[in-house]
Amino acid sequence: MGSQSGTLETNVDVLIIGAGPAGLMAAASLAHLTAVPSSSPLAVRIIDKRSTKIFSGQADGLQCRSLEIFDSLGFADRAWKEANHMIEICMWNPDASGVIQRSDRIPDTIVGLSRFQQIVLHQGRIERFFLDNIQKYSGGAIKVERGILPTSLEIGEERVKVRVRRLTEEQAAPPQVRTGSKSESTDGLFRSNLVGDDYEDQNITHQSDGEEEVINARFVIGCDGARSWTRRALGPEFELQGEATDFIWGVMDIIPITDFPDIRMRCAIHSANDGSLMVIPRENRLVRLYIQLKEVTPDASGRADRSKITPELIFGAAQKILKPYKIDYEYCDWWTAYQIGQRISPSFSHPSNKVFLAGDAVHTHSPKAGQGMNVSMQDSFNLTWKVGLVAKGICHPRILDTYQSERRRVAQDLIEFDHKFSRLFSGRPAKDVMDAEGVSMAEFKEAFLKGNLFASGLSVDYGPSSLVVKSGDPGELGDRSDRSRKLEGVHKITDEAFRAKQALAKGLPVGMRVNSFKVLNQACARPWHFQERLKADGRFRVVLFAGNILDQTQKQRVKAFCDKLSSPSGFLRQATPEGAKVDSVIEVLTIHSAKRTETELLTDFPDILHPFDPRTGWDYNKVFVDDESYHEGFGDAYHNYGVDKERGCVVAVRPDQYVGWIGELEDFDQLQEYFEGILVL
Amino acid sequence: MGSQSGTLETNVDVLIIGAGPAGLMAAASLAHLTAVPSSSPLAVRIIDKRSTKIFSGQADGLQCRSLEIFDSLGFADRAWKEANHMIEICMWNPDASGVIQRSDRIPDTIVGLSRFQQIVLHQGRIERFFLDNIQKYSGGAIKVERGILPTSLEIGEERVKVRVRRLTEEQAAPPQVRTGSKSESTDGLFRSNLVGDDYEDQNITHQSDGEEEVINARFVIGCDGARSWTRRALGPEFELQGEATDFIWGVMDIIPITDFPDIRMRCAIHSANDGSLMVIPRENRLVRLYIQLKEVTPDASGRADRSKITPELIFGAAQKILKPYKIDYEYCDWWTAYQIGQRISPSFSHPSNKVFLAGDAVHTHSPKAGQGMNVSMQDSFNLTWKVGLVAKGICHPRILDTYQSERRRVAQDLIEFDHKFSRLFSGRPAKDVMDAEGVSMAEFKEAFLKGNLFASGLSVDYGPSSLVVKSGDPGELGDRSDRSRKLEGVHKITDEAFRAKQALAKGLPVGMRVNSFKVLNQACARPWHFQERLKADGRFRVVLFAGNILDQTQKQRVKAFCDKLSSPSGFLRQATPEGAKVDSVIEVLTIHSAKRTETELLTDFPDILHPFDPRTGWDYNKVFVDDESYHEGFGDAYHNYGVDKERGCVVAVRPDQYVGWIGELEDFDQLQEYFEGILVL
Repeated sequence: MGSQSGTLETNVDVLIIGAGPAGLMAAASLAHLTAVPSSSPLAVRIIDKRSTKIFSGQADGLQCRSLEIFDSLGFADRAWKEANHMIEICMWNPDASGVIQRSDRIPDTIVGLSRFQQIVLHQGRIERFFLDNIQKYSGGAIKVERGILPTSLEIGEERVKVRVRRLTEEQAAPPQVRTGSKSESTDGLFRSNLVGDDYEDQNITHQSDGEEEVINARFVIGCDGARSWTRRALGPEFELQGEATDFIWGVMDIIPITDFPDIRMRCAIHSANDGSLMVIPRENRLVRLYIQLKEVTPDASGRADRSKITPELIFGAAQKILKPYKIDYEYCDWWTAYQIGQRISPSFSHPSNKVFLAGDAVHTHSPKAGQGMNVSMQDSFNLTWKVGLVAKGICHPRILDTYQSERRRVAQDLIEFDHKFSRLFSGRPAKDVMDAEGVSMAEFKEAFLKGNLFASGLSVDYGPSSLVVKSGDPGELGDRSDRSRKLEGVHKITDEAFRAKQALAKGLPVGMRVNSFKVLNQACARPWHFQERLKADGRFRVVLFAGNILDQTQKQRVKAFCDKLSSPSGFLRQATPEGAKVDSVIEVLTIHSAKRTETELLTDFPDILHPFDPRTGWDYNKVFVDDESYHEGFGDAYHNYGVDKERGCVVAVRPDQYVGWIGELEDFDQLQEYFEGILVL
Repeated sequence: MGSQSGTLETNVDVLIIGAGPAGLMAAASLAHLTAVPSSSPLAVRIIDKRSTKIFSGQADGLQCRSLEIFDSLGFADRAWKEANHMIEICMWNPDASGVIQRSDRIPDTIVGLSRFQQIVLHQGRIERFFLDNIQKYSGGAIKVERGILPTSLEIGEERVKVRVRRLTEEQAAPPQVRTGSKSESTDGLFRSNLVGDDYEDQNITHQSDGEEEVINARFVIGCDGARSWTRRALGPEFELQGEATDFIWGVMDIIPITDFPDIRMRCAIHSANDGSLMVIPRENRLVRLYIQLKEVTPDASGRADRSKITPELIFGAAQKILKPYKIDYEYCDWWTAYQIGQRISPSFSHPSNKVFLAGDAVHTHSPKAGQGMNVSMQDSFNLTWKVGLVAKGICHPRILDTYQSERRRVAQDLIEFDHKFSRLFSGRPAKDVMDAEGVSMAEFKEAFLKGNLFASGLSVDYGPSSLVVKSGDPGELGDRSDRSRKLEGVHKITDEAFRAKQALAKGLPVGMRVNSFKVLNQACARPWHFQERLKADGRFRVVLFAGNILDQTQKQRVKAFCDKLSSPSGFLRQATPEGAKVDSVIEVLTIHSAKRTETELLTDFPDILHPFDPRTGWDYNKVFVDDESYHEGFGDAYHNYGVDKERGCVVAVRPDQYVGWIGELEDFDQLQEYFEGILVL
């Protein structure tokens, strides 16, 4: 609609500012919410001031948790197939004579932590997967609009008014990627064969250069990076806090020519006196080197003089560190340099809960741990189902406060870890136990191991809130801000009561993501990783561990639970909009522990566990069994989830795969209360 | 170039007639040969008289072997992800009172046979994967040209002259798919969400309707189905031989509404008196039913009156067979009926070896075993690397004769199996052991189990030829035709000598495809299914089982073998065209059995096993180790391949993953001889 002044004016539910990984994740996960009914489809727009996506360089490590999320969106397989897989970390330290030697090998991903392991693939490909996924799930309704600059932001009663302007091609060109190549003959030999499906997307805006538009959004998500316009528009109280260190590092993506034996391993190398080096092997024969630049130091202002930093200087430092091994290259894909620093915003969202910030806009740190992109994407993944379900009228707006309490805490932990790790990695190794100024290599290894768990993204443990029923102080277990301390709708439970509930499923810690083990479909015997059934489609899930369904007492318990579940006054029917399928907002999934071949889906399980549809018959995809498969072994899910095989239990899972509630089959009323605190029933 | 008469006249290396699965497989595998050097790229065209691809119904089972081939082309994952997986077969037979009951459960795919299991996905999707793959690997050079009808074929000295004509839209429209739907309200609820990326391809021909063209092809491959124009053009001596039976079956793809408990299992159901039924669960809640039509019988001419066959008649038969269970449907995706018959052509290729026939053009049989599409694709996969490498001047033309000896034998075996199986499945079950006219259910089960191995596509065992060094009679182990008996260039080896060689790797039978076990990359510890390293890029492979490389004697043996391998007079250097990389035609892959962490790629293995390139450094993707992985268990490849862990052996693998030769590390001269018999050195 047009405003009086002739400026185009449009309404949207969600406006995403910035189309890097955090913004694209926001758009993708909103596109996936189409399965959840609403009176009208969510209107979502995503704008970016740059005119093209990223095609090389930049962040590239993908954590286990990011891959689990990608899988819940449907494209982990593309990343898994193209990426380099990180299997082993080798540590190299000076021996007694000061020569580097391999001192340790450890698995890159802790064994058993996830069904995925850490992989490396450049950001441009990840953006490609997101763009394809957004296209597929939004049916083309959501497209990245490039070359669009926001100019003002005004938070009103109902909506946020964002004024934007279309840039000229020249203004929108992204900062030039600084490449260095020894040989001029970049003749195609080196070109990736993986990018056959990569292309520049059509810009769908129909504005002329310089034209203005006013976007009235119910929610705005700022994913516009470390120099976030959105953050600045919210005011100085959102500014990043923290400071830079003296450590300056270079980064190069090259195809190495070397006799260093572990060039295809992730390596942490401490030289005796020439600084440290991290090796990250990548796809297409590339290797990323993070190289400490001891010769470059900050000036009086605390910033390094970037003009002095050349590829020759960076690579010379790498050659010194790697001695006596030789390293050279003909092809360099990308290079840059950075000064280590950790900064965080005091607040991740405006008190109105209409404007949110995610990713680099609210936390920055060193790139070596491969955390930045992952934590950023996980920020917006945490946020968007909440925003989307509130916008659809499914969830109570109070859940929006959990964004800051959950994600700012993760950023705090990350910054604390990065601070410690950077100092240990940038420090000179201790010559012996008497060398107090040097860094103890044992301490470094310990930090590395701890960092490895942290880096998987799987140690995240959300505190108590309306969404997570556990004991403890919401402030302490949140981001320790007033916002966390004053969370609305926190479910009360004593430590003792919570311990008893948690004991029902020790392998499913409340507040953490559901780990995955293989179970079989009861109807067709196909093995599935259980996590594969927890798609990011905006639905909550009730997982009924039905136990030994062949035992008559247990069968009665299951029946009693299902009777309440099917009741018109129960949360399941109450949450289901008129005319929608009963699994539209909350999906009930069952895992039982009897023998598959001794049980029958249609006769042993109450109808509500495999709902009937007059046009498509029974639902064969909701009941699973913890039993041996023919070809893929035995998931042993009850054992691994720590659930009693006879009596089972009930678990509520959030749309983002985090455990929200655990109880007995008799605890239906508490489960009812859990959902009443979250949903608009 | 234009001819004198003004008719367009073009030269190609290979002309493929027909763009069903066999033709698309031919085009895809030719597109993959681009890695193998040649003076000019292969010119390949594929034409089809139909104006569109298939969008529903038709053949849909994918064997393990087909998936292995898809993986070697790079798209098994797409099929695996979308398809329904076939896990278990349930057999239902009449009990003493004549009521059907479940009598047996067996795994659908024999455990341990392959890293894939049988899956089901409709032909239209498989064609989509092929089209995308052809586009990607040919860089757009090969596109299916639709609406093109061949009109004459003339085999000359150098080339085959094929005259074609462009059809009008009307002429090219494919035979209408006969669909029946109970409900008129096919309102999108039922539509697959998997086909978002399916679309009609642009027809790239620039001719006007009716315009003629002469295509001069070095090789023509006829993949144009049971009524093959190419076959008829070759003359009456190529006509299919065999006859139809009295058994008539209906096929329906429906979303069933039923209380039959095994509707999501593959089921073979024999009713007491109402005929037999096969249940094939499919993707998107569909189920395919193969239904015996006892009420329809052939007329005097031996053919059934098709006009009598309606969906109501077919479904009524299914309802009778399934009693006392109830079945109904609202949605039918596709239906048809067929009369069982087995037919085969006396010859699969013209004696000139310039024109070949593949797939339904040379063998037809009943669809129930899910064999047709698989065997057809495997025909052209067997043929095209041979044709392509001969066209490129890499291989000796004599290898073209092995197409008939290898693939016609497979078709013979298939027809024999189908003949027997159809009779057992269509027959009335025996009431007791005295009921001589009835079919014994024990015998049926036995045939089913045997059929299961056959149906995997993994029992194929090619006879001795220039490509396969084994003992035995080429005629008997081929298709028993004169063509097989007179194969050129068969390598002579006595039974005794062959037994000794085969004993070096008992798990790699010469003439059969290389099974797959996990091994680790020596340089980065990443686990790979070894078959993943055997891509269908037209390269032969020498697999060096290097044994215990840390043992000094063994290290000497490896060194001696590698010295010969590196020699300028050896087959490896001789086969490599001037200026090309040493792995262009033959790739050497190593699997050793020492501990990974005790060996170093660069110092423990001769250079030829990880060749150096001045621009990209050492090759880190050629040496593997049979050792424990961190996350994916232990492949135990030496044990599974039956290779001695100390002494190892050498195996030559054809571009299609079949074992061609086995020998000791000292047998270099025999390996040299093997390649001299195949390659133009």
